[in-house]
Amino acid sequence: MARRRQIYEGKAKILYEGPEPGTIIQYFKDDATAFNAQKKGTITGKGVLNNRISEHIFTLLGQIGVPTHFIRRLNMREQLVRQVEIVPIEVIVRNVAAGSLSKKLGIEEGTQLPRTLIEYCYKDDALGDPMISEEHIACFGWATQEEMHDIADMAIRINDFMCGLFAAIGIRLVDFKLEFGRLWDGDYSRVILADEISPDGCRLWDMATGEKLDKDRFRRDLGGEVEAYQEVARRLGLLPEGAD
Amino acid sequence: MARRRQIYEGKAKILYEGPEPGTIIQYFKDDATAFNAQKKGTITGKGVLNNRISEHIFTLLGQIGVPTHFIRRLNMREQLVRQVEIVPIEVIVRNVAAGSLSKKLGIEEGTQLPRTLIEYCYKDDALGDPMISEEHIACFGWATQEEMHDIADMAIRINDFMCGLFAAIGIRLVDFKLEFGRLWDGDYSRVILADEISPDGCRLWDMATGEKLDKDRFRRDLGGEVEAYQEVARRLGLLPEGAD
Ligand SMILES: Nc1ncnc2c1ncn2[C@@H]1O[C@H](COP(=O)(O)OP(=O)(O)O)[C@@H](O)[C@H]1O
Ligand SMILES: Nc1ncnc2c1ncn2[C@@H]1O[C@H](COP(=O)(O)OP(=O)(O)O)[C@@H](O)[C@H]1O
Ligand SMILES: [Mg+2]
Ligand SMILES: [Mg+2]
Repeated sequence: MARRRQIYEGKAKILYEGPEPGTIIQYFKDDATAFNAQKKGTITGKGVLNNRISEHIFTLLGQIGVPTHFIRRLNMREQLVRQVEIVPIEVIVRNVAAGSLSKKLGIEEGTQLPRTLIEYCYKDDALGDPMISEEHIACFGWATQEEMHDIADMAIRINDFMCGLFAAIGIRLVDFKLEFGRLWDGDYSRVILADEISPDGCRLWDMATGEKLDKDRFRRDLGGEVEAYQEVARRLGLLPEGAD
Repeated sequence: MARRRQIYEGKAKILYEGPEPGTIIQYFKDDATAFNAQKKGTITGKGVLNNRISEHIFTLLGQIGVPTHFIRRLNMREQLVRQVEIVPIEVIVRNVAAGSLSKKLGIEEGTQLPRTLIEYCYKDDALGDPMISEEHIACFGWATQEEMHDIADMAIRINDFMCGLFAAIGIRLVDFKLEFGRLWDGDYSRVILADEISPDGCRLWDMATGEKLDKDRFRRDLGGEVEAYQEVARRLGLLPEGAD
């Protein structure tokens, strides 16, 4: 196989040119970062698990009609996706108060929110991904009103679906982060779900014990990171029985 | 005159019970605070100037049909206003990047924004008045959708009017803060403009020299605070000629 051109190396993934125009390969690393990359580490095996978990969720979302960049998984650490123009906004969907929201508004972690809350952050590591509102997005032209409408619609549908998916396996979906991108077709574009959905960008709490099955284990030095990610994969039916 | 009951003492004003039900008196102090009251000081004469400037602007806004709490000025430091139920949201209207926006998004101070930007902060000193979005407001029920619609409409009208007012006297309206409150009539309420509009809550830059004529003089230890507030009052025609 010819050497592939690397397009970008991020905090958790590397992007390579794909085999056909308009495609790219996402390679999932074991690197973990938190607090805007001030904390760095490795979670051995994380990349493999996230590649598999993200494949699973994106495939199911595609089946309920949410357009995604996912084409197919290539191997343990790689998946083929459609190349998009990333909308520079992190979309955070929250069902339960935790993390920065709890801190900012003084709401105890674990408090069910009166309704699902969507937050937006401007995706810029140098600025620390600051929280913004639709006003900022419109002011600086980071996305059109129509794109934001579609993004909010998709975020709500994804949340409903994922709440169900995780409820079925005894996991509370506290919050999660999404990224969207523009897929161009001539002069027109539409936004589709991009990046990944994995325990790196979700808060997943065991319903029975409250145990954290996500990147907060790394952020808060709780240990057992890879076991937690494995447990999520196992409950989703993605590991052979008795494999952990 | 009978002793009045004090209702509240804030960072810049004291509220007293008014002479008729549904009214209160705003007493303007000389106290100045910044950075969520971590910095404190006194600007001698500020209260008198802000009382006068706010009276002037609220009166003019009333004349263009913006409903406000203002009834009449009582004396040098006091004004009679309608008592409202304050909506716990600070509405920040920005025409030019400055202060927290510049810092947060890495935009040089003084950059004209592509369009007017409205930001919302949750009014809670203990939390440091965190920035929020309409999503948070809806989620926690701090205001209804209808109220937010009316508030945004009024904020835009107020901005247009004030841009004109200050342009006429050689001042660039960079940004300013508004507060709104609910006026109840039986089971119904409507939101009206409350609190104050003064150099305490506005960024006002001299168009010719760029000189700051607002509370940034205090925040940034530039000196000449009262002279700056006086200059604003003078240009607005509120000081007798040759009085400074
Ligand atoms: N389909 C796609 N097309 C182009 N870029 C994508 C696509 N999906 C995700 N990306 C971008 O690729 C990068 C993935 O690598 P990651 O390690 O998550 O980077 P980062 O550190 O920037 O978050 C992200 O910047 C993400 O926005
Ligand atoms: N018409 C009104 N009715 C009731 N409260 C008001 C009205 N106008 C302003 N307020 C409130 O009165 C207080 C004014 O005092 P201030 O020193 O500005 O207080 P703070 O430190 O809370 O900002 C503010 O809390 C403001 O929300
Ligand atoms: Mg990423
Ligand atoms: Mg105040």
